Amino acid sequence: MKVAVFRKEHFNAAHRLHNPNWDDEKNKQVFGKCNSPNYHGHNYNLIVKVWGDIDPETGYLIDIKILSDLISEHITSKFDHKNLNLDTHEFANLNPTAENIASVIWHILRKHLHPKYELKVTLYETERNFVEFPA
Amino acid sequence: MKVAVFRKEHFNAAHRLHNPNWDDEKNKQVFGKCNSPNYHGHNYNLIVKVWGDIDPETGYLIDIKILSDLISEHITSKFDHKNLNLDTHEFANLNPTAENIASVIWHILRKHLHPKYELKVTLYETERNFVEFPA
Amino acid sequence: MKVAVFRKEHFNAAHRLHNPNWDDEKNKQVFGKCNSPNYHGHNYNLIVKVWGDIDPETGYLIDIKILSDLISEHITSKFDHKNLNLDTHEFANLNPTAENIASVIWHILRKHLHPKYELKVTLYETERNFVEFPA
Amino acid sequence: MKVAVFRKEHFNAAHRLHNPNWDDEKNKQVFGKCNSPNYHGHNYNLIVKVWGDIDPETGYLIDIKILSDLISEHITSKFDHKNLNLDTHEFANLNPTAENIASVIWHILRKHLHPKYELKVTLYETERNFVEFPA
Amino acid sequence: MKVAVFRKEHFNAAHRLHNPNWDDEKNKQVFGKCNSPNYHGHNYNLIVKVWGDIDPETGYLIDIKILSDLISEHITSKFDHKNLNLDTHEFANLNPTAENIASVIWHILRKHLHPKYELKVTLYETERNFVEFPA
Amino acid sequence: MKVAVFRKEHFNAAHRLHNPNWDDEKNKQVFGKCNSPNYHGHNYNLIVKVWGDIDPETGYLIDIKILSDLISEHITSKFDHKNLNLDTHEFANLNPTAENIASVIWHILRKHLHPKYELKVTLYETERNFVEFPA
Repeated sequence: MKVAVFRKEHFNAAHRLHNPNWDDEKNKQVFGKCNSPNYHGHNYNLIVKVWGDIDPETGYLIDIKILSDLISEHITSKFDHKNLNLDTHEFANLNPTAENIASVIWHILRKHLHPKYELKVTLYETERNFVEFPA
Repeated sequence: MKVAVFRKEHFNAAHRLHNPNWDDEKNKQVFGKCNSPNYHGHNYNLIVKVWGDIDPETGYLIDIKILSDLISEHITSKFDHKNLNLDTHEFANLNPTAENIASVIWHILRKHLHPKYELKVTLYETERNFVEFPA
Repeated sequence: MKVAVFRKEHFNAAHRLHNPNWDDEKNKQVFGKCNSPNYHGHNYNLIVKVWGDIDPETGYLIDIKILSDLISEHITSKFDHKNLNLDTHEFANLNPTAENIASVIWHILRKHLHPKYELKVTLYETERNFVEFPA
Repeated sequence: MKVAVFRKEHFNAAHRLHNPNWDDEKNKQVFGKCNSPNYHGHNYNLIVKVWGDIDPETGYLIDIKILSDLISEHITSKFDHKNLNLDTHEFANLNPTAENIASVIWHILRKHLHPKYELKVTLYETERNFVEFPA
Repeated sequence: MKVAVFRKEHFNAAHRLHNPNWDDEKNKQVFGKCNSPNYHGHNYNLIVKVWGDIDPETGYLIDIKILSDLISEHITSKFDHKNLNLDTHEFANLNPTAENIASVIWHILRKHLHPKYELKVTLYETERNFVEFPA
Repeated sequence: MKVAVFRKEHFNAAHRLHNPNWDDEKNKQVFGKCNSPNYHGHNYNLIVKVWGDIDPETGYLIDIKILSDLISEHITSKFDHKNLNLDTHEFANLNPTAENIASVIWHILRKHLHPKYELKVTLYETERNFVEFPA
């Protein structure tokens, strides 16, 4: 039987939802106040779930310090106190919806996590709106 | 890979647990203080999970505003500040346990949600007692 | 210098806001959906604050177990899983607004708490609506 | 004895801390990553505390719906999904620190709240950093 | 379709992470401050998930009072206000990592829960570090 | 008008309540399971409140980074992952009740905080039991 370990981190960022292939009217209609031109922001809470087999020597699935450092090095140091649209290459041409941010985070972490672990991320944009990738 | 979107809503309602086929003694034995005759109540927190494919044009699985409006129109406007036993036809003949309320909410939302989406609901009766449907 | 001790408890109850000296129209206008005739309910969270001097022998202001038992005996056993309007004499002729419930709780506890302690209560009707007595 | 009523609201905004009288080096030294040029953002949680005497006819200090509408009309509709530095005249020449935002909110609400009520605001920039005005 | 019921409980315990087959240096390197010799402690939050079919007579999957009593009798009465390493036979020779505690709790509850129910436990060591068993 | 700034930190520690001037029976009677001989533990949440005047140049009462570092250097680095009774000189001869821990923390911070600031600490031993010093 497998065990899962979860680590909760957070970062604060600005973003704007916008599709450059649409005119202003359509952008406003689809994205509403999230299309506000000068950006708005969120305290993003991120929960990273990793699962696999317990190591009998340590009693750990993974050292949570290592997992935390991995998230810090590759995710929060990159996104925290940043404008996702302007300051990150990941969202230069990708709309920074919660769905896309979660997917980007998953793909970054997947490259740096040992293949023996399964991986899932949950991203809270607010306390009432959140996403999970993969579902 | 699929993505899931969650929306948290809430409603405040009164209810009483009671099986009309049983006498008072058995009702009291099974349902305890939840059988109190003049009703009691809860702040119900509801989390609706929808999952499927990201729309590449919007970066959304589903516009969370549309999901929120759907819940508001069909669930919270119906149950909020109501007596579930007396004011709703859904529980006129169905015991309003958290399990049954979650099932009722799922069946209502399922009818109004596009079939391309998967659906699950989590209902918190208190911070320490909650249910998920389907499991 | 004084120290304060806080204890958080909760109870689930039904209530209805209504002024019997007013007609139905005015009641509905003033109390809105809180005037719904068949009651609705809440998970009330109660925080009791007691302050005074630390006892040097125990290092306690007050044994939190004693404070918790006091709240349980005089408040939660009386209000939990009850209809405040119908099942309690305190609200037989007093509108069970959060303000009045907090005041009632304070007056009950004040009688049972040693006079050397100061007392304040905070009552959460929902996560977003709460009251404090005395202010 | 007075009673206090609290209402919790929230808004999501972008901001940047910056003193135009200082050079870039000093701004970066004082404000650190909060000085990031393209803005970052927060989910601001706002708790408004109002206190005074209970109205014996309603059992209310103030109709929480009226308080909530007041906050919505004058605060959240103005700041939600906005860039505080660029989109609001209040922070055109005032650094949008949590302290200053709380002070601005208090002064706006004070003008619109009946003088018989006392007023205090608490503003959460994150779960771990928050301010109160006046202290 | 199945329904799941969740019950949240908590216990406060001391523990120390240590592998007796390793020397002090390796223990300190692997377990860091969790290896501190005189123990440290946590408020453990435990969520027990049980799932299966709704009983049509009660509208319950399981009486949450029965589930709560089961957890109290077999888990919290055993671990609450205890030193996991010194006071419990389960961790006399097993490192009390969150992963192992969750596994131990699951195996204890599994023996006492009717086989018709599925079972999963989530254990929060802190708000930001938690585990699930089985994953 | 003054403004207050709050910073939330946490540490995990073991402790035991015990008065060496009493026999075992009296210790057990007064402190109950908190007297358990091999210690138990808590995730202590600490909220430090500082208040005074806003600095017009920065818009800060105090740089929250400086406040956070102060707490880290003098409080959490000292108490985190420690046994309060055995590993700290502050509680070698002082019962580590929440009241006494809060008082100790206040006195430590008071020495390191500029006299122009007022200071108060709130310490959560659990989500439901917490203290404030000074009251």
